[in-house]
Amino acid sequence: MNLILLFPEDIDAQGRARLAGRRLKHVLGVHRANPGDELVVGMVNGAIGSGRVTEISGTGMTMELSFGSRPPEPPLLTVILALPRPKVMRRVLFSLTVLGVKRIVLINSFRVEKSYWQTPFLQDEAVRTQLVLGLEQAKDTVLPEVLVRKRFKPFVEDELASMTRGAVPLLSHPYAGQLCPRGVEGAITLAVGPEGGFIPYEVEQFRGAGFAAVTLGDRILNIENALPALISRVR
Amino acid sequence: MNLILLFPEDIDAQGRARLAGRRLKHVLGVHRANPGDELVVGMVNGAIGSGRVTEISGTGMTMELSFGSRPPEPPLLTVILALPRPKVMRRVLFSLTVLGVKRIVLINSFRVEKSYWQTPFLQDEAVRTQLVLGLEQAKDTVLPEVLVRKRFKPFVEDELASMTRGAVPLLSHPYAGQLCPRGVEGAITLAVGPEGGFIPYEVEQFRGAGFAAVTLGDRILNIENALPALISRVR
Repeated sequence: MNLILLFPEDIDAQGRARLAGRRLKHVLGVHRANPGDELVVGMVNGAIGSGRVTEISGTGMTMELSFGSRPPEPPLLTVILALPRPKVMRRVLFSLTVLGVKRIVLINSFRVEKSYWQTPFLQDEAVRTQLVLGLEQAKDTVLPEVLVRKRFKPFVEDELASMTRGAVPLLSHPYAGQLCPRGVEGAITLAVGPEGGFIPYEVEQFRGAGFAAVTLGDRILNIENALPALISRVR
Repeated sequence: MNLILLFPEDIDAQGRARLAGRRLKHVLGVHRANPGDELVVGMVNGAIGSGRVTEISGTGMTMELSFGSRPPEPPLLTVILALPRPKVMRRVLFSLTVLGVKRIVLINSFRVEKSYWQTPFLQDEAVRTQLVLGLEQAKDTVLPEVLVRKRFKPFVEDELASMTRGAVPLLSHPYAGQLCPRGVEGAITLAVGPEGGFIPYEVEQFRGAGFAAVTLGDRILNIENALPALISRVR
């Protein structure tokens, strides 16, 4: 936790923050905070600052807050991702948040197993947990938007064009002939397939929407490596 | 498993491969292989080819082999890494193998907890398991070399110079002023610190050995994201 992410409900009438539960445990156990210490804090979707610890008890901790800086600029990047299996999806939501992606679209694909859509990890609360952990890691405050689209064809036909407008649309495809470009200027929409890749019909749909199929080389990266590798390369 | 990695002990006197155990289970359960199918195989530290399934029983599977291509060219990259906590280390060994790194050096640092050195995940067999899984994922055959150096100072004084000779030495440091360069030509030696970073004394030792401190930006990446992001950027 490189930043304590605060929510409006953490703030009392005097403008002080009160922590309990998971965050308290972490601040006491890992940061070993004492009264007087200054900790890095951020208001959700807001500024970054510091919290001076004024009181610690077994059930809570109080901090006086001051805010002075803005969260890091996000890369202009939308990631469209075929829904990974549940355990991987949790890690991927965390990772994409750490990497600064502010719009994540989880879509269906022929090679996505139907059962994946039933996972409790897709419920709002579970998704939000990973996003919060990601912001705490990255020292950021801006929650990504996560869109879930269970039907491939309506998504491609009705929404894909608006998501790529003004952006460079790239499709990560292990067997593409073209190497992924470096340091692309401006906004990017990056589509990434499931294990085994998008099927030819799906690739054609993306191509039809203007996506260029690109690869990182001969190695087949797992999704947890492919996402940071792709994002770091294009930004 | 995008490639079945074969070892000399898998090959019988007629040059056929016989699989059992984990690999058999995967090939039957995930690939749903049948007699006559062709599967991608590779000899450890050797060529890539195909295995035609000739026989399947409950306890084993036999394949006729032919080899025709070389494993992907590895990036000329040595990664020196402060030992992460055990669970992370397992994933990191897997990831670095997937990313094609062929020399991994695990070192001590002030912020590495002593207990991490006791983990069973550092034992040869456990390390090798992650390397094999990584090669199977990446479609590669060449096992990385993993060096374990439990003492920081002797490592820096006696070995670091030889590891950086002829290479561009880069130290990943979240608070460095200089952005990590892109697409560096030639060999690279990349040093990456523990959670919380190397302490100033350690940073000075690396600087003294010619390392330039570089960063990926304002976000604090966890090691699982930082490694693919760094490697993809410099290669």
